Amino acid sequence: MASTTDARPDIDDFIRDIPDFPKPGIVFKDITPLLADSTAFGAAIDQMAELIADLKIDVIAAAEARGFLFAAPLSLKLDRGMVPIRKPGKLPYKKRSYSYELEYGTDTLEMHIDGIQPGQNVLVIDDLLATGGTVEACCKMIEESDAKVVGCLFLIELGFLDGAKRLADYPLFSLLKY
Amino acid sequence: MASTTDARPDIDDFIRDIPDFPKPGIVFKDITPLLADSTAFGAAIDQMAELIADLKIDVIAAAEARGFLFAAPLSLKLDRGMVPIRKPGKLPYKKRSYSYELEYGTDTLEMHIDGIQPGQNVLVIDDLLATGGTVEACCKMIEESDAKVVGCLFLIELGFLDGAKRLADYPLFSLLKY
Repeated sequence: MASTTDARPDIDDFIRDIPDFPKPGIVFKDITPLLADSTAFGAAIDQMAELIADLKIDVIAAAEARGFLFAAPLSLKLDRGMVPIRKPGKLPYKKRSYSYELEYGTDTLEMHIDGIQPGQNVLVIDDLLATGGTVEACCKMIEESDAKVVGCLFLIELGFLDGAKRLADYPLFSLLKY
Repeated sequence: MASTTDARPDIDDFIRDIPDFPKPGIVFKDITPLLADSTAFGAAIDQMAELIADLKIDVIAAAEARGFLFAAPLSLKLDRGMVPIRKPGKLPYKKRSYSYELEYGTDTLEMHIDGIQPGQNVLVIDDLLATGGTVEACCKMIEESDAKVVGCLFLIELGFLDGAKRLADYPLFSLLKY
């Protein structure tokens, strides 16, 4: 008798390797085949939700743009509000901002000051954990709101880039690991 | 006897007016209070889906970043794949691009060439119809793929900015009109 799990799409089949993007030697994990198949996309959302089923979450945070693709459906599935984290100049209301170091120069993220309340338990969602720089900045900004990061949830984790080491202070959950 | 519609959240209550953003004299429609309330956000997604229930749709297209917030849940609700339309340099695979005029200079959008097949019926989704420039560019790029734009769906339409006139070639659907 076939197990019911046999009917679940293998999410890995919907991730496309693109060699040498964005630069030579890098293999980019392209999620657009997953987005193109709503059955597989829905299964990925369900499976991501299962990974963090035991967490007590008040609000979901996600950085633009690809983080939005997973945070919005998970917000509805988990029945928790979401707060968008954006690049400078995009958010219209009173903001908190956080700057962080890149290989060359710095980058800044912004979040509305009413997006997260002190004491709340926050789940950070993104499509991909690579070096972890963006998600670490999100977590620090959330902590500056006196809220707690109870987990970081990813569709994909690239193990060889040491993002998990950088985010060692937070519980990490990844559906696919390469 | 109360009608069942009384129980539905009034989506308009979750849109916040921000005066003088991004420049003096402009009143920005801030959707972050809607995102913060998953019940209202879910109701908005349901009501947007009802608006286009009669359309025959093969695939959903949406431009980053706020378009993703509505296109991803609607992709799952309508059980149709979605194709992300992005700013230059973000998409890793073979691309089609489309440049269009702004008040000062030009802007460019990109889409994977395998995102939309010739002959498909495409629904374009965005959070806000203002001048319509971005969505018009999306529609033109979709038509260059020999596909058909069967509708453009918005959470919010700002009537006074004449976006609807610019998009007169396409059936428009907006949940909230100001």
